[in-house]
Amino acid sequence: MLRPVAVSLGDPAGIGPEIVAKAWDQREAANLPCFFAIGDVDAIESVWAGPVRRIADPAEAATVFETALPCIHVPDEGETVPGRPTLEGARCAFQSLEVATGLVRAESASALVTGPVSKIQLTQVGFSHPGQTEFIAERCGVSRSNVVMMLAGPTLRVVPLTIHIPFAHVPAALTPALIKARAHATARGLRRLFGIAEPRLAIAGLNPHAGEDGLLGREEIDLIAPVVESLRLEGLDISGPHAADAMFSPRARAGYDAALCCYHDQALIPIKALHFDEGVNMTLGLPIVRTSPDHGTAFDIAGQGRAHPGAMIAAIRMARDAELCRRSCTAAG
Amino acid sequence: MLRPVAVSLGDPAGIGPEIVAKAWDQREAANLPCFFAIGDVDAIESVWAGPVRRIADPAEAATVFETALPCIHVPDEGETVPGRPTLEGARCAFQSLEVATGLVRAESASALVTGPVSKIQLTQVGFSHPGQTEFIAERCGVSRSNVVMMLAGPTLRVVPLTIHIPFAHVPAALTPALIKARAHATARGLRRLFGIAEPRLAIAGLNPHAGEDGLLGREEIDLIAPVVESLRLEGLDISGPHAADAMFSPRARAGYDAALCCYHDQALIPIKALHFDEGVNMTLGLPIVRTSPDHGTAFDIAGQGRAHPGAMIAAIRMARDAELCRRSCTAAG
Repeated sequence: MLRPVAVSLGDPAGIGPEIVAKAWDQREAANLPCFFAIGDVDAIESVWAGPVRRIADPAEAATVFETALPCIHVPDEGETVPGRPTLEGARCAFQSLEVATGLVRAESASALVTGPVSKIQLTQVGFSHPGQTEFIAERCGVSRSNVVMMLAGPTLRVVPLTIHIPFAHVPAALTPALIKARAHATARGLRRLFGIAEPRLAIAGLNPHAGEDGLLGREEIDLIAPVVESLRLEGLDISGPHAADAMFSPRARAGYDAALCCYHDQALIPIKALHFDEGVNMTLGLPIVRTSPDHGTAFDIAGQGRAHPGAMIAAIRMARDAELCRRSCTAAG
Repeated sequence: MLRPVAVSLGDPAGIGPEIVAKAWDQREAANLPCFFAIGDVDAIESVWAGPVRRIADPAEAATVFETALPCIHVPDEGETVPGRPTLEGARCAFQSLEVATGLVRAESASALVTGPVSKIQLTQVGFSHPGQTEFIAERCGVSRSNVVMMLAGPTLRVVPLTIHIPFAHVPAALTPALIKARAHATARGLRRLFGIAEPRLAIAGLNPHAGEDGLLGREEIDLIAPVVESLRLEGLDISGPHAADAMFSPRARAGYDAALCCYHDQALIPIKALHFDEGVNMTLGLPIVRTSPDHGTAFDIAGQGRAHPGAMIAAIRMARDAELCRRSCTAAG
């Protein structure tokens, strides 16, 4: 049997505590595995009237889980007010992430799910990584250039080849080496964490209509098509470059297991349009399984009971499924 | 009562004839107004077994429509083979468009719906416009810079501010004058053709997270936000710049009547992901109503009976609704 899944609450003033509690509430209907929270117990109780029980060790989670949300308490040393982020809250979020990552690394927990944090706040309390992903990669001893962000929903998986850079910098950032590394990492992740023996990748063009034979831009001809050809020779099942506006229709989506996208919005627009309350961010390339809901802290609606737990539920379920897959693959291989 | 809607079949070797015939088949269930086809009758009969009747004048359409698809015959002088575009077929498509536009201009038909054409083929038979839209604009005496392409589905309308240009040219093409002209034309179109008295516009940012306060690009700060401010002073209800990946979620979509997008794929990815078989291309800024299904000739599936008529049906219905709206607005104003 799997050890419980570790779920860090993220910023205590964000919607993290509420959606983790709501996920526990729906554990049976949503077919969730045993999990426990890591963060400030009071932050949960201030936004949720259900039962929470402090635990000291993940091993206690299994017996508690049926009747209460198990939580390893990491105190917010300030006063937690939903919607009002503080530096003390950011320190709590940082420490919760650290504890959660450590427990999964030590195999006391089976997989890691991280709640939403505020990067601006974290930066002010000495967190020197661009995001939680890079922190986790470092703790796992993996170079951040080898981890890949995949966004996954029920009918679509996307991998942005470039992420948080200005629009105008995208063409120069797309290099053959980058595309090849991301394509191989994506195929490995699909095999290892999703159990897809022969993953089918589809890559989007950069220009409208994938450049229309060079009429609307040449990156498809000069860069993407040759890389696709080379990846095929290396054994990858990859198609494209495809016209980006056509490749997210239901019929087109049925033709691939993951879409490689040239830039942030090309990947995130379709996943959020189609699967807004179910989108999961999964990190590929780590020795552990790590997911997170594909949304932020939503300080503007925190504490109002209005936060939708769908993406958190999907993140916990996907973490369990991926970890089961990883174990059976590892056992088999 | 409205005159019938004129529907040009587009390229006879594409899926146009099939989807127009299928739309007629579903005329009752789909609540379609009386319409007639303009194009090669044999092209319809070669892909569809239902009744077609040649008419010489749009006035005949009303009596024919109950029992057969009325069609003004424009012959394809070559042999029509589905999936195999020819120059004769392109000439037929060109002439069908010309006849259809003329009939609507002359008010023998109430609105214009255009089937999909092949631009490459058309160019070879002397069609000197970038697309059907520019041809229609010229025939209506409107400068092509004053017409605006809107893509509309059941839950989303988008207007791309730049269209068929390379990705790398987008930042330079986005000017205050362009954004302002498109925003006003969109608001006018929503009032005039959709009956929305006080249209709410939302504009997308260019960069990821709408630039994240300049961290990921400055176009939002230097260009878009000042234009939005200026448009508000001019009386427009416009919000943004919004993070493009968040603005197409169901909740976000409920907050505006049309999204102004910085480039082709930012607009077309969400509309096609959400409304692939129902997307309608509507031209704003013309004296007549003109729509078309938001897809191409699909030569690869032509003649196989597999083409989905959803977008054609939606285009005919939207043309009727817009024309009714235009008349009542004109009557009222």
